Amino acid sequence: MKLLAVKVECSHELEDGLSFFMQDELDAQGIESRKRSDFVAEGQKHDSSLVELDDIENLPKDLELTAYFNYENADKKELVKKITDKIAEMKGYGLNTGEVSISTKEVADEDWNTAWQKYYHVIDFSRHLAIVPEWEDYHPAFSDQKLIRLDPGLAFGTGGHTTTQLVLLAMERALVKPMSVLDIGTGSGILAIAASKLGASHVLGTDISDEAVTAAKENIALNDVNNINVRKANLLKDIDDKYDLIVANILADILLELIPDLDSHLNKEGKVIFSGIDYLQLPKVEKALAENNFEIKMKMQEGRWIGLLIARKPD
Amino acid sequence: MKLLAVKVECSHELEDGLSFFMQDELDAQGIESRKRSDFVAEGQKHDSSLVELDDIENLPKDLELTAYFNYENADKKELVKKITDKIAEMKGYGLNTGEVSISTKEVADEDWNTAWQKYYHVIDFSRHLAIVPEWEDYHPAFSDQKLIRLDPGLAFGTGGHTTTQLVLLAMERALVKPMSVLDIGTGSGILAIAASKLGASHVLGTDISDEAVTAAKENIALNDVNNINVRKANLLKDIDDKYDLIVANILADILLELIPDLDSHLNKEGKVIFSGIDYLQLPKVEKALAENNFEIKMKMQEGRWIGLLIARKPD
Repeated sequence: MKLLAVKVECSHELEDGLSFFMQDELDAQGIESRKRSDFVAEGQKHDSSLVELDDIENLPKDLELTAYFNYENADKKELVKKITDKIAEMKGYGLNTGEVSISTKEVADEDWNTAWQKYYHVIDFSRHLAIVPEWEDYHPAFSDQKLIRLDPGLAFGTGGHTTTQLVLLAMERALVKPMSVLDIGTGSGILAIAASKLGASHVLGTDISDEAVTAAKENIALNDVNNINVRKANLLKDIDDKYDLIVANILADILLELIPDLDSHLNKEGKVIFSGIDYLQLPKVEKALAENNFEIKMKMQEGRWIGLLIARKPD
Repeated sequence: MKLLAVKVECSHELEDGLSFFMQDELDAQGIESRKRSDFVAEGQKHDSSLVELDDIENLPKDLELTAYFNYENADKKELVKKITDKIAEMKGYGLNTGEVSISTKEVADEDWNTAWQKYYHVIDFSRHLAIVPEWEDYHPAFSDQKLIRLDPGLAFGTGGHTTTQLVLLAMERALVKPMSVLDIGTGSGILAIAASKLGASHVLGTDISDEAVTAAKENIALNDVNNINVRKANLLKDIDDKYDLIVANILADILLELIPDLDSHLNKEGKVIFSGIDYLQLPKVEKALAENNFEIKMKMQEGRWIGLLIARKPD
């Protein structure tokens, strides 16, 4: 299979938003991110006098995001236009886009399949959680660290995204007993797997995309867990049960659609975790939560991204 | 020993700030907090039709904070004046003080020693951490939850304060390998104990107060840990070593004093956790961090309180 590679050079401020957009909206098969700051940080880990940044081949000016599309279905001109429009929209939010350039290239799938693996490594997320690519041999510093095995090429949620990480942290806080968990927009299944490893009694992961449902099932099979179900569903519309914990890592506008249906799907003393919220969109999410009788227990922010731990207001 | 009990009735918004003030600045021996919302929440855990709030004796209107002082040393009039001034100051920050009333009462120490215990219970803080009063028999839902044993009457840091909890969460995130940890203003020693239980290689806890140093040592002795030292020190002034992780849960003005000395006490790739910051004071902390070449990796907020996970800026 041939692939179309679309390379966007721009400011690192666009990384999360643009990755999200290209994977979720434009159906990219996979995304590579090369950031100047990663090379700088990597250099600092060694004796810095030995690492000359100028010697690195094609060192990115700031951020280089390369998205891979199925060549047969991809409309090159339209993709470039949509990405250009998205960047203009993000600029409208007040983000610094940097000097933007977009280029395209035709590549053989084989190249990509091996090439992108080198950009995914173990994410030593926290004291008790690490995300480990399927092919990596990893020896945790603490033997009781829980490992989430993932084929990060499969769907959104490689563990590297800030929005995913904010949910992981909030789950470590909230999951103090065996709870039932609903993961809306499960993507790669990473959050469903994490919930199970943390001790959820059972987990349902849902996604509107067939590809995500398949990917989540494949990732779940890589992990030693047996209490996760995955099925196709559009937010809470086809869900009948109630849960102790509902997590949703999707964009703010979709969270807004979800909020009115939360109460009827949440057990007594249930909690909700939201992520995927740009800080500029926080006020409207806060307003909708308050109007629906929810309150924010804890707010987490990394860069522009906000995650929320939410509960019903006390009467 | 006789005690002077000073009871402040006011809005729950003052709870953390006023507790901090009375314990740290006015040297209260202990503080009891009774909040209407706690009784409401407790009622909801049972069949709510059976719990009638009106039946509860002396149900607080909103918040009742009772601080206990050594009767011999306490100047009743001056204490009331200082608390009144503090509340006026907090009102100036924009807090809702509610209807404030302050009353004093003389009590026998024996009454208090038994009375306050009923206000401290297990804090099921997170999936992997719980704070357990010395006298409680606790069976965690997850057998690998790490327990911090505490005599919460001893010094500041009972585990119930938001500011303490934000540090606990940030430590769960940051302590991904055996690190050396410095806990500045250790109080009860709770954060030093947590760091050790999470797998720190060694921990130094410091406090400017002799009472806190004694209390921390007593609490450490309740826990099965052997790599914590505690000593009296004024912030970083008497500290020579460098650490992988520095935590400081103290008020914003004291954090500002600390910031210029951080760099020289932090190992390469070291991290810093700050808590005790009222959100109105965040801008000046952010400014001082930026001026000293630090950046905020993650911001956590609960109510008015902010906690920060901090690292050096990449070059």
